[in-house]
Amino acid sequence: MTHTIGVFDSGFGGLTVLRALIRRFPRAQFAFLGDTARLPYGSKSRRTIARYAAQSAQFLVREQGAEFLVIACNTASALALDAIQDAVPVPVLGVIEPGASAARAASRSGDVLVMATDATVQSHAYATACRARGLRAIEKACPLLVPLVEEGWTDPDTHTGAVTAEVIRIYLEELNAQAAAEGLDPDTLVLGCTHYPLLRPFISRAVSPGIRVIDSAEAVADAAALIFAQAELPCPILPQAGEGTKEEIDPQTALRFFATDSVEKFERLGSRFLDRPVGKVELVDLGG
Amino acid sequence: MTHTIGVFDSGFGGLTVLRALIRRFPRAQFAFLGDTARLPYGSKSRRTIARYAAQSAQFLVREQGAEFLVIACNTASALALDAIQDAVPVPVLGVIEPGASAARAASRSGDVLVMATDATVQSHAYATACRARGLRAIEKACPLLVPLVEEGWTDPDTHTGAVTAEVIRIYLEELNAQAAAEGLDPDTLVLGCTHYPLLRPFISRAVSPGIRVIDSAEAVADAAALIFAQAELPCPILPQAGEGTKEEIDPQTALRFFATDSVEKFERLGSRFLDRPVGKVELVDLGG
Repeated sequence: MTHTIGVFDSGFGGLTVLRALIRRFPRAQFAFLGDTARLPYGSKSRRTIARYAAQSAQFLVREQGAEFLVIACNTASALALDAIQDAVPVPVLGVIEPGASAARAASRSGDVLVMATDATVQSHAYATACRARGLRAIEKACPLLVPLVEEGWTDPDTHTGAVTAEVIRIYLEELNAQAAAEGLDPDTLVLGCTHYPLLRPFISRAVSPGIRVIDSAEAVADAAALIFAQAELPCPILPQAGEGTKEEIDPQTALRFFATDSVEKFERLGSRFLDRPVGKVELVDLGG
Repeated sequence: MTHTIGVFDSGFGGLTVLRALIRRFPRAQFAFLGDTARLPYGSKSRRTIARYAAQSAQFLVREQGAEFLVIACNTASALALDAIQDAVPVPVLGVIEPGASAARAASRSGDVLVMATDATVQSHAYATACRARGLRAIEKACPLLVPLVEEGWTDPDTHTGAVTAEVIRIYLEELNAQAAAEGLDPDTLVLGCTHYPLLRPFISRAVSPGIRVIDSAEAVADAAALIFAQAELPCPILPQAGEGTKEEIDPQTALRFFATDSVEKFERLGSRFLDRPVGKVELVDLGG
């Protein structure tokens, strides 16, 4: 029997999380919803975000039969995870706790750097999750990175890629200066935004030697695998040995995509995030 | 007697338009509203934008006594000018028609370049307004420029300013290539976004020799002055000779600022757009 994992984001950056999940769970069905009509969540109040996220989660569970839900959106994970868990009767996994857990496993010094959007940094969700694991974290808002990714300036060997490389160099320089000023000795960098995996080649090249880079998308897939392996859930979607490469999945049957607006942009940009064609995106109306 | 000019934007970029208006009409009172809770307008439907913009216009007219309204927002000007004119009994001026008129006055070849946000370009409002004046226009979406301005990377003599200069160089190169491919001979560049006046030093340096740069904010102030001078309006706010420098205005009495959310960001970034301290921003609730 095939099970459905629901993946929710305010936009389509969460497709990088879906990509990591597909690699890990090639036998699962996936339903992805981007609440594109109401993005960005980052500038909205906690109550509004909780209402939007709960509606989106209910769509994936009630209409699409999701038995497990991944919140592939840092803002919703930071501000609305409880509200989503209250709204649906299935297990819900956010991106922040897995990212912090992966940082805990990776760091020896206990000092961690976090790059994220302005809204995520203002929530201090990563700092809080890190502190709960005995880590000290320095967070930095990097508001140019999402537009650089959406502009497609992500090829390191071009003159547009050179701009992206320089922006990342400046952000990391400022982040390291902040860490030094507070007496930290960081050895781990958390990519705290679902767009950032597309910048990983730049970031890996720009970080100081010895810094481990944690991709939240990979961390979420790892955390989901752990949950399923521990068999604590009614939805044991286990990977089979030898599976997990993109050739083995039929995207027409295994993947369904939904958006509340901007289907055109989703279809156009989504394939870069997912690393395979997105195909048809279905427009849905979740109401106000 | 002192008259009130209402200025409306979805965010606070329109403060560059307010700045130009203050220089032109130093005897007027100004009430500025940023509908920051509901931005960006660019990703929303025309009907939704019209409803938001009409509510905002009514606030400025009914609650703040505005006798003349300037829509300092390209998206609202492109998609909702009619709806705003229907919603309030005072004259309403958008940013797009004045920008196109200034381009008409400036251009000899009749070929014009437009840099704007993605939403404004998709509306083709500038191309339409230019065509109505016998101009051919090539529009280019420059989605990195607003985040660069909001990040404060606007000092040409710094390493962050060097990034901004390179981004602008790339955009202008692509724009010129588009124009050449379509056989155009542009001699005028319209800055079709209220954030872009803060990038004017970069843009003036980067354009080809002989290209005239049109600032929509200045064009709106010019258009308003023309309307008042023609005395077609019940609100004749005329500049006095020798007035118009910033020292002569008492910002505490002449300027009132309102926002629907994010007052902190408005207060923090607004002064750079306005070129003087913004001071207190009052939070208002316009409902859903």
